[in-house]
Amino acid sequence: MADAVLTISSKNYSSWSLRGWLLCRMAGLDIEERIVPIDDPANRAELLLLSPSVLVPRLEHEGLSVWDTLAIAEYLNERFPEAQLYPADRAARALCRAVSGEMHSGFFNLRSALPMNLKAHHPNFRIFTGARPDIERVQAIWEECLSHYGGPWLFGARPSVADAMFAPAATRFVTYDVPLRPVPAAYRDTIMAWPLMEEWIAAAKAEPEEVEELDIEF
Amino acid sequence: MADAVLTISSKNYSSWSLRGWLLCRMAGLDIEERIVPIDDPANRAELLLLSPSVLVPRLEHEGLSVWDTLAIAEYLNERFPEAQLYPADRAARALCRAVSGEMHSGFFNLRSALPMNLKAHHPNFRIFTGARPDIERVQAIWEECLSHYGGPWLFGARPSVADAMFAPAATRFVTYDVPLRPVPAAYRDTIMAWPLMEEWIAAAKAEPEEVEELDIEF
Repeated sequence: MADAVLTISSKNYSSWSLRGWLLCRMAGLDIEERIVPIDDPANRAELLLLSPSVLVPRLEHEGLSVWDTLAIAEYLNERFPEAQLYPADRAARALCRAVSGEMHSGFFNLRSALPMNLKAHHPNFRIFTGARPDIERVQAIWEECLSHYGGPWLFGARPSVADAMFAPAATRFVTYDVPLRPVPAAYRDTIMAWPLMEEWIAAAKAEPEEVEELDIEF
Repeated sequence: MADAVLTISSKNYSSWSLRGWLLCRMAGLDIEERIVPIDDPANRAELLLLSPSVLVPRLEHEGLSVWDTLAIAEYLNERFPEAQLYPADRAARALCRAVSGEMHSGFFNLRSALPMNLKAHHPNFRIFTGARPDIERVQAIWEECLSHYGGPWLFGARPSVADAMFAPAATRFVTYDVPLRPVPAAYRDTIMAWPLMEEWIAAAKAEPEEVEELDIEF
């Protein structure tokens, strides 16, 4: 029997599900996945709004039910300190939370113009002008963290909450062929080669395409 | 000399500034306020996008610069545990973070249809249909927390991070005359009578109206 239940939705489309799943696995939790079908109308509306929700990700563990990706991160960090989900240094930890918070509440144009779609590949995709400052900001955050903490992960030698938060952005840059500067490009490749990401992406690619119209074209 | 510098923008319009300021004052910090003028074009664009940003709120304290409202909350909670910004009980703390995270990343329709404007009062304001589920969800969260933890604050006898996160919603319900059920209405009044809120609102009302067009009509 698994330690915990994690409710998620489509592995192909749901970037919030991916973040919550990465955090649970990074914490060493043995999770049972409960999939909310993407053809459920309520969930579909939520996917289309591209907003996180009460539904996914939701973690049930030791009698508690925790939702919201950052709340799950803080819960796991308190419960499994040995997993070191946040950096040990106070300044690094504050910066890790700041950039994770930025991704949590912002980057709306990036999320709506370049929705996560792990099965797709759109070379020469025309990037909506509104999304460009978001792409620039993601690159600037990655460059600052990698240069300050030495990589290969944003806060040094091991993945932290920030890497889970930015992992879906790396997949979007692959899906939509977004040109990146060398340092962010190398980090994108680090994310794509992360064994947990390879496991998730393989499952996403095997996912049946139940609702074709979700393959939104902007 | 103050302990810390908090960068904020308009006290009348910036709900993120209000949240960050409440958190700092709840933590007992003696802060110097640095106001980013609302006629600064970059800041104005940010206000109009109704999104939190790198600019405000930003806390400088003991050589660290922390931005993003939830990152500031977690930083203050670690640095000033005696202020008890989060509930002491693990389950309550997880719920407090979940509802705070929900406000941090969601409620986009509420934020855009009913922008914070402490000087204004719009009786009989017609509420955009898209904002109604957000208003319902805020009421449901308040009812659940108040009934479970006994009020008068969301998590019991003292204000927590969640009260700071939802305080701007209370002001919107006043500004736009949003009808609420009795329990949420009483909590809205608790927020409006909070001495820290009275202090902030008085300063907001005294703020010169530099950029008239920011008084957005929807």
